[in-house]
Amino acid sequence: MTREQLFHQIMTKRSFLCVGLDTDIKKLPEHLKSLPAQEAIFTFNKAIIDATAPYCIAYKPNLAFYECFGVEGYAAFEHTCRYIRENYPDQFIIADAKRGDIGNTSQLYARSFFEHLDVDAVTVAPYMGEDSVKPFLGYEGKWVICLALTSNKGSHDFQLCTVDGTEQRLFERVLTTAQTWGTPDQMMFVVGATQGQLFEDIRKVAPESFLLVPGIGAQGGSLQEVVKYGMNSQCGLIVNSSRAIIYADGTENFAAVAAQKAKEVADEMSECLKALD
Amino acid sequence: MTREQLFHQIMTKRSFLCVGLDTDIKKLPEHLKSLPAQEAIFTFNKAIIDATAPYCIAYKPNLAFYECFGVEGYAAFEHTCRYIRENYPDQFIIADAKRGDIGNTSQLYARSFFEHLDVDAVTVAPYMGEDSVKPFLGYEGKWVICLALTSNKGSHDFQLCTVDGTEQRLFERVLTTAQTWGTPDQMMFVVGATQGQLFEDIRKVAPESFLLVPGIGAQGGSLQEVVKYGMNSQCGLIVNSSRAIIYADGTENFAAVAAQKAKEVADEMSECLKALD
Repeated sequence: MTREQLFHQIMTKRSFLCVGLDTDIKKLPEHLKSLPAQEAIFTFNKAIIDATAPYCIAYKPNLAFYECFGVEGYAAFEHTCRYIRENYPDQFIIADAKRGDIGNTSQLYARSFFEHLDVDAVTVAPYMGEDSVKPFLGYEGKWVICLALTSNKGSHDFQLCTVDGTEQRLFERVLTTAQTWGTPDQMMFVVGATQGQLFEDIRKVAPESFLLVPGIGAQGGSLQEVVKYGMNSQCGLIVNSSRAIIYADGTENFAAVAAQKAKEVADEMSECLKALD
Repeated sequence: MTREQLFHQIMTKRSFLCVGLDTDIKKLPEHLKSLPAQEAIFTFNKAIIDATAPYCIAYKPNLAFYECFGVEGYAAFEHTCRYIRENYPDQFIIADAKRGDIGNTSQLYARSFFEHLDVDAVTVAPYMGEDSVKPFLGYEGKWVICLALTSNKGSHDFQLCTVDGTEQRLFERVLTTAQTWGTPDQMMFVVGATQGQLFEDIRKVAPESFLLVPGIGAQGGSLQEVVKYGMNSQCGLIVNSSRAIIYADGTENFAAVAAQKAKEVADEMSECLKALD
C-alpha cells in the first residue's frame, strides 16, 4: 500500500484507527477458552475483525501473543493475516514483531513477513543500525515501522539519553538517521502516546512521516493531544488501540461491544479529520 | 543452567564453542534440498548436532532462519530445541531471537522460550529499556543475553554514540544499566568479535559477565584477540561460529566435515583454557 492509498483509506473511512490484535487467550470470553489455542485465537480474531473493519484502517497482531503457543500460535497468526488479506484487502496489516538482526538475517525476516505472509508493515528495533533495517526496505509498497520513542516506562532508560555531546536525544537521532535509510513512503515510526509533549519535537525532525501511536486507551494516551501535536497534512497518524477495544466485553457479545468501542474512537477521529477536508 | 554449571561444562569439554544453527535451506547439501522445508531443516540440524556435540557447549538457532518458512519452519525450530534438550541435556540452548517489547508482551515471549520451549537463554534487544528485558529474568536457571555491541556494520550507527554529555558510549550505558536489572548469574551480553579492541573497555564495565561473541569465522573475528581481552576467571566467553562450521562442506559428508571444523576450533580453545587450570 502506498502512502497515498493509505491516506485515501483514512479519508474515506474517516478513521486512522488500528485495532491491535493482542489476543491473550486468558482474556478471551469463557465460551472460547475451552477451544484448542489455535482455534480459540483465530475464532476470536475473526469475530473482532468482522465487527471492527468498518471503523479502522489497520490491524496489528503482536507476534508475542501468538508465539507463546508455538506452532499452533504461529498458525493462528498466519491464518489471521491471510483472513484479513483475503476479506478486507484495503486494511493495512502491521506485524508487530520488533525484529532486527544483522543484514542477512533481517533479510530472512523481511522475506518471512513480506513474501510468505504478505503483511504491509513490520515493526523493527533500531539498536543494530542500518543493515538491520535496510533489508525490510527492499519491497515495493511495504513498510518498515521503526521504534523511535516507545510508550513504556523503560523508554526512558536509553531513548531519552542525549547523544554525542549535543542536545539531541537518542530517539531523535534514530528519527534523523533512519530517514537517511528510507523515505516517508516506506518508513514510519513508533511514537508512544503517553509522551504527548514530545510529539512536537518529533514533528520537527520527522514532519512527513506516518507515526504509529500505540499508547491510546489502556496505555493511557489522549487522542486529542496526539492529534494536536502529531497530525500533518496527510494525517500522518495511525493510532492503535488494543485492550480497550478487543476486551471491552467478556461475554458472547464481545464482538458487538468491540465494534461499538471502535466506532466511538472512529467518531472522535472523524471530527479530527475535518481539519484535512 | 547456572553459571557454575556452564563453567564446569566448559572446563570438562575444553571448549567454549557455540555452534550457530543458522540453517539456510539454500545452502543445504543437494540431497536435502528436495525434502520439505521442515524435514530438510531438522535432518540437517540433527546431523550437525550429533556430529559437533563433543566439541561445543552450546547451540544457537537464529529464529529468522526458521520463521521464514512460517509454521513449518517454526516446527523445525521446536523440533531442533527438543532434540537437543532430550539427547544432549548438558548443551546450553540459545534462542537467538533478539526480542524485546513492553512488559506484558515480553512476558509472553519469555513464557514462549522458557516454558514452552525450555531453552536456556534468549537474546534480547535493549532499546525499549528495563521493562522490556526484566520479564525474561524471572526464570531460575534461565538467561537473558542482552545486545550490547553487535558485530555488524550498523552497530556504529547508535551503539557507539556517547551519551548524556559523558565519554560513555551507548553500548557501555547498556552494559552498566542492564547490570542493575540482572546479575551475572542470569544475564550475558552480546559482544561482536570484529570489535577486538573494544573488549578491554567492555571488561572494565562488565568484568564478571559471560559474553556471547557472534563474530568468529565468517564474520571475521579472531579467537586469540577475543580471549586475550575477553576471558575472565570463569572463562566468561561463549564464542559462536555458524557458517564456517555448518556449511564447511556441501556434500553428503557435511556433518563429518562440520565435526572436523568444530574440533579444530575446540582444540584452539582448549589451549586457551589452560590459563584457567
